[in-house]
Amino acid sequence: MIWQGEHCVISAKAQLGENVRLGHNVIVEEGVTVGNNCVIEHNTILRSGVTLGDGSLIGANCVLGEYGVDFRTNPDVLGQPLEIGKNALIRSGSILYGGSRIGDHFQTGHQVTIREKTEIGHHVSVGTLSDIQGSCRLGNYVRLHSNVHIGQLSQVDDFVWIYPYVVLTNDPTPPSSDFVGVHVHSFAVVATGAIVMPGLDIGQDSLIGAGAIVTKSVAPYAVAVGNPAKTVSDIRRVRNKITGEPAYPWRQHFHNHMPWDAAGFDAWYASLDLEEKEGYTLSDLEE
Amino acid sequence: MIWQGEHCVISAKAQLGENVRLGHNVIVEEGVTVGNNCVIEHNTILRSGVTLGDGSLIGANCVLGEYGVDFRTNPDVLGQPLEIGKNALIRSGSILYGGSRIGDHFQTGHQVTIREKTEIGHHVSVGTLSDIQGSCRLGNYVRLHSNVHIGQLSQVDDFVWIYPYVVLTNDPTPPSSDFVGVHVHSFAVVATGAIVMPGLDIGQDSLIGAGAIVTKSVAPYAVAVGNPAKTVSDIRRVRNKITGEPAYPWRQHFHNHMPWDAAGFDAWYASLDLEEKEGYTLSDLEE
Amino acid sequence: MIWQGEHCVISAKAQLGENVRLGHNVIVEEGVTVGNNCVIEHNTILRSGVTLGDGSLIGANCVLGEYGVDFRTNPDVLGQPLEIGKNALIRSGSILYGGSRIGDHFQTGHQVTIREKTEIGHHVSVGTLSDIQGSCRLGNYVRLHSNVHIGQLSQVDDFVWIYPYVVLTNDPTPPSSDFVGVHVHSFAVVATGAIVMPGLDIGQDSLIGAGAIVTKSVAPYAVAVGNPAKTVSDIRRVRNKITGEPAYPWRQHFHNHMPWDAAGFDAWYASLDLEEKEGYTLSDLEE
Repeated sequence: MIWQGEHCVISAKAQLGENVRLGHNVIVEEGVTVGNNCVIEHNTILRSGVTLGDGSLIGANCVLGEYGVDFRTNPDVLGQPLEIGKNALIRSGSILYGGSRIGDHFQTGHQVTIREKTEIGHHVSVGTLSDIQGSCRLGNYVRLHSNVHIGQLSQVDDFVWIYPYVVLTNDPTPPSSDFVGVHVHSFAVVATGAIVMPGLDIGQDSLIGAGAIVTKSVAPYAVAVGNPAKTVSDIRRVRNKITGEPAYPWRQHFHNHMPWDAAGFDAWYASLDLEEKEGYTLSDLEE
Repeated sequence: MIWQGEHCVISAKAQLGENVRLGHNVIVEEGVTVGNNCVIEHNTILRSGVTLGDGSLIGANCVLGEYGVDFRTNPDVLGQPLEIGKNALIRSGSILYGGSRIGDHFQTGHQVTIREKTEIGHHVSVGTLSDIQGSCRLGNYVRLHSNVHIGQLSQVDDFVWIYPYVVLTNDPTPPSSDFVGVHVHSFAVVATGAIVMPGLDIGQDSLIGAGAIVTKSVAPYAVAVGNPAKTVSDIRRVRNKITGEPAYPWRQHFHNHMPWDAAGFDAWYASLDLEEKEGYTLSDLEE
Repeated sequence: MIWQGEHCVISAKAQLGENVRLGHNVIVEEGVTVGNNCVIEHNTILRSGVTLGDGSLIGANCVLGEYGVDFRTNPDVLGQPLEIGKNALIRSGSILYGGSRIGDHFQTGHQVTIREKTEIGHHVSVGTLSDIQGSCRLGNYVRLHSNVHIGQLSQVDDFVWIYPYVVLTNDPTPPSSDFVGVHVHSFAVVATGAIVMPGLDIGQDSLIGAGAIVTKSVAPYAVAVGNPAKTVSDIRRVRNKITGEPAYPWRQHFHNHMPWDAAGFDAWYASLDLEEKEGYTLSDLEE
């Protein structure tokens, strides 16, 4: 059963699942597949090549499956495939290109841009105005707050938190064509306004302070601050200012929406079988 | 009398005032109230719960009364009330959630996002791409320039100026759930790219320099710059580089669109009766 | 020959060229001129006064010819002229005001805002979320990456590269009305997150480091970094970290999409006749 608003333009070659609700002025081009129990809000455009998992909600004024730049030289080109998993929540005004693959339980804020050749794991959240430049990888349970800029060739591992106005850069001698991406390792936290120079490693469980200009790789568990950033502490020495308790590694203290929400991190991690462990990029964690 | 463009979808349960003009493709859902002499531009969506004051103009491609996240679990939920006062000017591409209250003479730039539980006074201006995260308060005559990020639990008092790429943060040990907001006091000026750490006070009439990383509260009248920010001067010693005249407190020198435009600040302030004074957060000013 | 989608609203007083394709819900107001072989995607609005050159492609959800603020006091006002040259590529979600003039081969990313009284040369690219505040000039072959903020009265000469989250400011004693713009000279490179104080000169071929807070003018060929920024080197001493070769002046090493792509910079420059040279702001280059 499908409910649709006024003035929609739905291609006969699109496949819509059961119990799909479309707002007004929705455009669904040919070759689109929408799963069951989805909601597509007013004015949103699903271009050719979009596959949307069951239970997803797409806000108003979005463009999914946006054309890459070659639509200039060939306006008849069909979009590249954009695969979005189940239970996505993409908020209004966001633009996602064709040619990317996104896991289940994906969320975005508003006015997000995600370019082509982006691989995104499951349970990832990308905040309002964030700009993912494409040709990059985000792991599972990655959280980008508002207005984060992910340069091409970046790699962001599982359970990384990146805060507003952070930039992962990629060009050591701008302008050039010799891009080299940043690699942010699992559980790292990059605070507001930090800028990471091309090709650096941000170590597992490290903490990059607000406004840090990171010009050298940062070791696991290090706290780095300043311009240029220097390691000033170890995260295991940082305490919650209110309770006085240790605050890091944060996975021992923060559980909200994490897979270890019920059991705590250690019990959850111990419960993973080998195949499940290999689904995460947590290899360094054994040490 | 109402004029409306092509392909509009107007709920019979919406209330539109006199002399309202709607562009093409405008969507007005049930339970919306639009005052007299308003203009709603093309493609704009007014969701359930919006109340818009007389004389307001809403640009194209806006969403007012955007649903909160619980629309995921209950797509039939009606929007929370969004009250916007008289003579608003909301520019194209902006998204304002239901569940906020905004005073008269409100202005935004483009692509602005304002989340739920935001309380905004009168004569406030929010620049292009600014991102107000909700659960916060902005006083009267607050001016946010482009691309300002206001974290949850922030409090910004009257006559504050905040410049591009400033962030008011709220999480002392990210990630956590122990948010504590920044409090920016009246007449403070926060220059471009400054980042203010959680829970700090930015004193009345203080001046935070461009790119400052503010890690301690700043006293009234102080000038703070650098990473980490240090107090380097008193605003009363800062002079206009062209005229050589004192430039601060700015309320003595800048009158454009301020309520003391005609009389000057001191005469205006002296003319306020007690009730009027209590409408502003200027209590410290007596000292 | 014109192809158009569903639910378009095209003024009889608009002039559309040959082989123009319009998506669904496109709005073309009176007084608009669209050249031959253009594509206008879904939901885009061309307001009165827009002139679009041959071979241009405008993405979805754009507003071209946006009204200036005086539409508040006079909603019947027609838009100011917006002239866009040939072969433009304006990506989805962008908003360009009336009252600006833009050369051939213009490109934007998504959600770009360009205010009135902006003069832009040819072969200019403006990245996603960039915010050009108007009353400013960009030369030829200027490249603004994502999320660049160009304040009013800025002047950016030919072949300048500006990276994400850079701000060119204009108010020495905020808030004031005494704006003074930044002047970025030809071939300068301003890296991510730098903030330039009002009225400064960024010298020809200089390199401003990421996160620099620039408080004094920077000499030609200088490398300036830090907060406050200091000159730490000469660009001719900076080497490509991979090849070990000199990396600057970049025009000697980077040719992609530049007019000297085939011949190299020196041969190209030598081949220009006087009139062609005067089309660029390269007068300092002789030294």
